[in-house]
Amino acid sequence: MKEDFAMTLSGSWPRVAVVGAGAVGGYFGGLLADAGAPVVMIGRRAFAEAVNHAGLFLDTLQFQKSVRVEASTEPSAVRGAELVLFCVKTTDNAATARELAPFLPPGAIVVSLQNGVDNVEQIRAAANIEALPAAVYVAASVPGPGRVKHVGRGDLVIGPDSEKTVKVAEIFRRANIPCRISGNIEGELWTKLIWNCALNALSALGQARYRQIAESADARKLMDAIVDEVLAVARAAGIVLPGLEDPKAALAGAMKIATQMAGAFSSTAQDINRSRRTEIDSLNGYIARRGAEVGVPTPVNHALFTLVKLLEERR
Amino acid sequence: MKEDFAMTLSGSWPRVAVVGAGAVGGYFGGLLADAGAPVVMIGRRAFAEAVNHAGLFLDTLQFQKSVRVEASTEPSAVRGAELVLFCVKTTDNAATARELAPFLPPGAIVVSLQNGVDNVEQIRAAANIEALPAAVYVAASVPGPGRVKHVGRGDLVIGPDSEKTVKVAEIFRRANIPCRISGNIEGELWTKLIWNCALNALSALGQARYRQIAESADARKLMDAIVDEVLAVARAAGIVLPGLEDPKAALAGAMKIATQMAGAFSSTAQDINRSRRTEIDSLNGYIARRGAEVGVPTPVNHALFTLVKLLEERR
Repeated sequence: MKEDFAMTLSGSWPRVAVVGAGAVGGYFGGLLADAGAPVVMIGRRAFAEAVNHAGLFLDTLQFQKSVRVEASTEPSAVRGAELVLFCVKTTDNAATARELAPFLPPGAIVVSLQNGVDNVEQIRAAANIEALPAAVYVAASVPGPGRVKHVGRGDLVIGPDSEKTVKVAEIFRRANIPCRISGNIEGELWTKLIWNCALNALSALGQARYRQIAESADARKLMDAIVDEVLAVARAAGIVLPGLEDPKAALAGAMKIATQMAGAFSSTAQDINRSRRTEIDSLNGYIARRGAEVGVPTPVNHALFTLVKLLEERR
Repeated sequence: MKEDFAMTLSGSWPRVAVVGAGAVGGYFGGLLADAGAPVVMIGRRAFAEAVNHAGLFLDTLQFQKSVRVEASTEPSAVRGAELVLFCVKTTDNAATARELAPFLPPGAIVVSLQNGVDNVEQIRAAANIEALPAAVYVAASVPGPGRVKHVGRGDLVIGPDSEKTVKVAEIFRRANIPCRISGNIEGELWTKLIWNCALNALSALGQARYRQIAESADARKLMDAIVDEVLAVARAAGIVLPGLEDPKAALAGAMKIATQMAGAFSSTAQDINRSRRTEIDSLNGYIARRGAEVGVPTPVNHALFTLVKLLEERR
């Protein structure tokens, strides 16, 4: 296809734009830049100033180094990009998609690296942009402007299984980012959602690292109740979950993540601790809404959603 | 009866000891002292020092004044008391009862002014002390050692309907403390428990004042789910709830309390904010345990219990 010509040149890098340069965008965009891709990151003023002054500092499990990336506060910086990593908070989907649309090159491939299962829909509805969905597995935080601290995993699942997806996966893999292609990306996003629902609010409300959650028998029992509700909603909504027909497998998956990221707080906990809006509407809140639509009771997910909302609004 | 002779003398005051001089003990003991009763309060060192230096400062909805009470850190200060207000945290029931027992005058009337429904049992089991149960309705806090801030209500329900109970009620009423006698004190304690279960953990986990809870449609829905579970456990346990056969009445009661105490945080929230142990084991935790015993699922109460426990253990 003519529009993504640069990516067809083996060995050359596409021009990459990261929209929403938080922990996820900073980590994956930073690794692409470190591997040689020209990367521009669009973020807040403090971020852009820090990065333009001293580069992006990556403090990963494998290395610590400053990486050269371009940084901007302007959506127009997406001009010329061939691969766009869409990494804003899900709460900002519509506004960001609309700001971006006028500057987005026609052939650019947009990949949503976000929590939740309905980002592609939201981005399409807001600005008629077609994005590829990705399930992101990384534990990372932003300890200060222009800094990314990586504490666990760092891999992607993208889909659907198309020519475009294969190209994107190749680019990530060239930067040593494990990237699996799935023919059931909806199921993959729901799998990630299960684990987000099981862990994120608990870490935020209990101010607990994943280790503490994994070690508590009561927390495991609570996760069990959360997962049961999410699986019931998924079943009623006709979602096929890859390898998670058995609730025990779903819970085991969440426990494995909690162990892999033992030292981390969830992104929801990080948002609360910085007095920022969380993505709870896309997580336990989504399950509560979707459950109501398909007639499945979700009292525990609704409780977690409600408590995080109260915490967001605290004075 | 010979043993409570002082109380039979109309117009004279019994010697009162308050064990556990927090917000509840400080408020009710302080009002008794202000009315003329000789009161000794047994509490922490900082409390005793402040009170012996400057008296107990009562900042109530009706007045602000310093009240003269005796203060001590020693359980032996209960010697000579005719009325003992047992106001420690429920987590300290057994230890306090055992410390107190050697010094408790044989005829002294002990009243449990505590949250939860099984304090009398716990106190009896630990030290063979027979206490009268009271359901306490007051919103108060301890802004500093020797200070009590009262922000809502301030009334008691005691039982069972006995000669001893009537005497105790008369003493409270002489100090202008509304005190109702109930022939179904178990039901009254459970009624209070319903409201504690509906409100305390929400205020702690959401860092929310009761006003914010009352104003949130989602929080009301969550309270509904909590109350439904508590009512189901009460039914299965054979508890007769006075006037709360209808779940709507129970929820309306909690909403009324939230409105009456709009500006308050729950005691659970106050404990969390001071890094103290909470009474959650006696509240949502009690419902989860009792539910398991009687075969009633309590996923929402268990979730709240678990989250408060995580928060207690935070590092």
